[in-house]
Amino acid sequence: MISTVNTNIEDIPQISKEMKLIERELMRVIEESDEPVRGILRDFFAGGKRLRPKLVLLSGLCFSPVNTKMIYSAVAAELIHTASLIHDDVIDRSDYRRNRPTINYVYGNHTAVLAGDFVFAKAFEVLCRYNLNRCMGYLVDAIQEMCAGEIMQARDSPDKTVDEDHYFRTIEKKTASLIAACCKSGADCGKAGEVQIEKMGLFGLYLGYAFQIVDDILDVTGDTSEMGKPVAHDLEEGKITLPYIYLLQDSVLGAKYRDILSDRKLAAGMKAQIIRDLKQSAAITKTYAKAEECVKKAREILDGLPDSIYKEILTDLSGKVIKRNR
Amino acid sequence: MISTVNTNIEDIPQISKEMKLIERELMRVIEESDEPVRGILRDFFAGGKRLRPKLVLLSGLCFSPVNTKMIYSAVAAELIHTASLIHDDVIDRSDYRRNRPTINYVYGNHTAVLAGDFVFAKAFEVLCRYNLNRCMGYLVDAIQEMCAGEIMQARDSPDKTVDEDHYFRTIEKKTASLIAACCKSGADCGKAGEVQIEKMGLFGLYLGYAFQIVDDILDVTGDTSEMGKPVAHDLEEGKITLPYIYLLQDSVLGAKYRDILSDRKLAAGMKAQIIRDLKQSAAITKTYAKAEECVKKAREILDGLPDSIYKEILTDLSGKVIKRNR
Repeated sequence: MISTVNTNIEDIPQISKEMKLIERELMRVIEESDEPVRGILRDFFAGGKRLRPKLVLLSGLCFSPVNTKMIYSAVAAELIHTASLIHDDVIDRSDYRRNRPTINYVYGNHTAVLAGDFVFAKAFEVLCRYNLNRCMGYLVDAIQEMCAGEIMQARDSPDKTVDEDHYFRTIEKKTASLIAACCKSGADCGKAGEVQIEKMGLFGLYLGYAFQIVDDILDVTGDTSEMGKPVAHDLEEGKITLPYIYLLQDSVLGAKYRDILSDRKLAAGMKAQIIRDLKQSAAITKTYAKAEECVKKAREILDGLPDSIYKEILTDLSGKVIKRNR
Repeated sequence: MISTVNTNIEDIPQISKEMKLIERELMRVIEESDEPVRGILRDFFAGGKRLRPKLVLLSGLCFSPVNTKMIYSAVAAELIHTASLIHDDVIDRSDYRRNRPTINYVYGNHTAVLAGDFVFAKAFEVLCRYNLNRCMGYLVDAIQEMCAGEIMQARDSPDKTVDEDHYFRTIEKKTASLIAACCKSGADCGKAGEVQIEKMGLFGLYLGYAFQIVDDILDVTGDTSEMGKPVAHDLEEGKITLPYIYLLQDSVLGAKYRDILSDRKLAAGMKAQIIRDLKQSAAITKTYAKAEECVKKAREILDGLPDSIYKEILTDLSGKVIKRNR
């Protein structure tokens, strides 16, 4: 299906009214907190593409006109996503996110752990207040997947044999499960039937794969100012993402880097050399092709849904996930 | 009111059947997680007095025979408490808890932050599965209080002027708010009226004050093997708890320690000297008297409730809070 609408992730005019409402409610949730929490969170929430609220909303609009449940389910999804980012920054010891210093960098791990917990609780407060029990079910499962996945990943032994399957299992838990939960939540709020809710979940899963694959490419090819975080952070953290998996499959470079990449402490200068070789290899192109494959599958699932402008926007958005920041 | 029942916190024969059921469901929640999360949590959950589930249950039984909502509300309360302990250990860099090494000590901060998030999510899964929306509301408010309180406390400037009021505001957020939420949850599950739910919340608040005051005394007077954590940890962390506040009010010792206690880095040997002086001063007795005052208020609130064996147990339990590990 070729989409007739043209969107980018940042700004989708067809839903700008609803997104403004979601933004206003999100800010209201933050503003109702006491200082110093309010100030800490206000800064952190100021950035972000709001991809997850958009997916909740669009998934809902595919099945019904906008309703209160969609709005607050979208707010809760962004809160959960943000809470997990705050904790990820503690875990990864990240200094920058969304082109700003992280909460752990400015206020310390202590405040960042608690601020993340606070935002999680806010999300559940919203879900509870608007009786969004089924959405809560989807989101709670996704949080558990995210945590269990990251714990599992951290306890992997330095892994020479990390392969595509393992990578997909990891990104499913880490990213795709929450995106799938967002799409299911939206469809549920739009009173879609069980089968269609499951379909939207599957759409979200493939979109989530594509999103994370592109994130992992941008970690290699992006620059700090575009990404809002340091380049090749994954490499420094010893995370073998898809571009590196494909690099290791290269007949020449694979042999060169096999041992080096399994060593969690890279020698000085080695990082730049790996990135240079990676960019000149076919690995990046191959990784993009994989992301495109995921988008294709996501779009095929959408094809089975009733036609609507929102389905077209979702189709278009799936493609934009690949083109962002390229 | 003089209680005719005799309980200790560890074991209350009158509710042992219900507590076994709660324990079984708590363990089932843990066991349904995948490895390695399951193993990590199983160890951590093995300890604990289960004070919060007991309070949920007893507060419910004051108003109605046992029901499913009480059981799962109690399970969720223990999960939330445990999640917050896991994160507290990260924040406080604690090595020991419940006479075992902490999750952060064994597996690192990374795993501990995620394990705490996982357990929070499990709590909400339980609350959601059993439609415990009102309990979720109480508990979510308490989590926010706990986090906001601890963030506020950490951002206090090294505080010479910390007084009793400030101390009570801190322990209300840190401890008493969750205990109050437990009592409200139980009463709610027991279908108590709004006024009685509020009363049970107030009872929990005073009990929570007493509980934390005694905890802060035991931090000074207990030994590591009894407490399952290092002695005078608060002092090392620069936390001026009630025993120290009263020490500073001592006409002689107050002047001696005013500047020393406001200095977050204690000189070697100073800790032992402070503890020695504290034990010989009137501060500990005064602090116990304050805890007893709180217990008295808690019991007065109970007096207004319909008579039952469970009310008597709660009355008795309030006294036991003070006598524990003494």
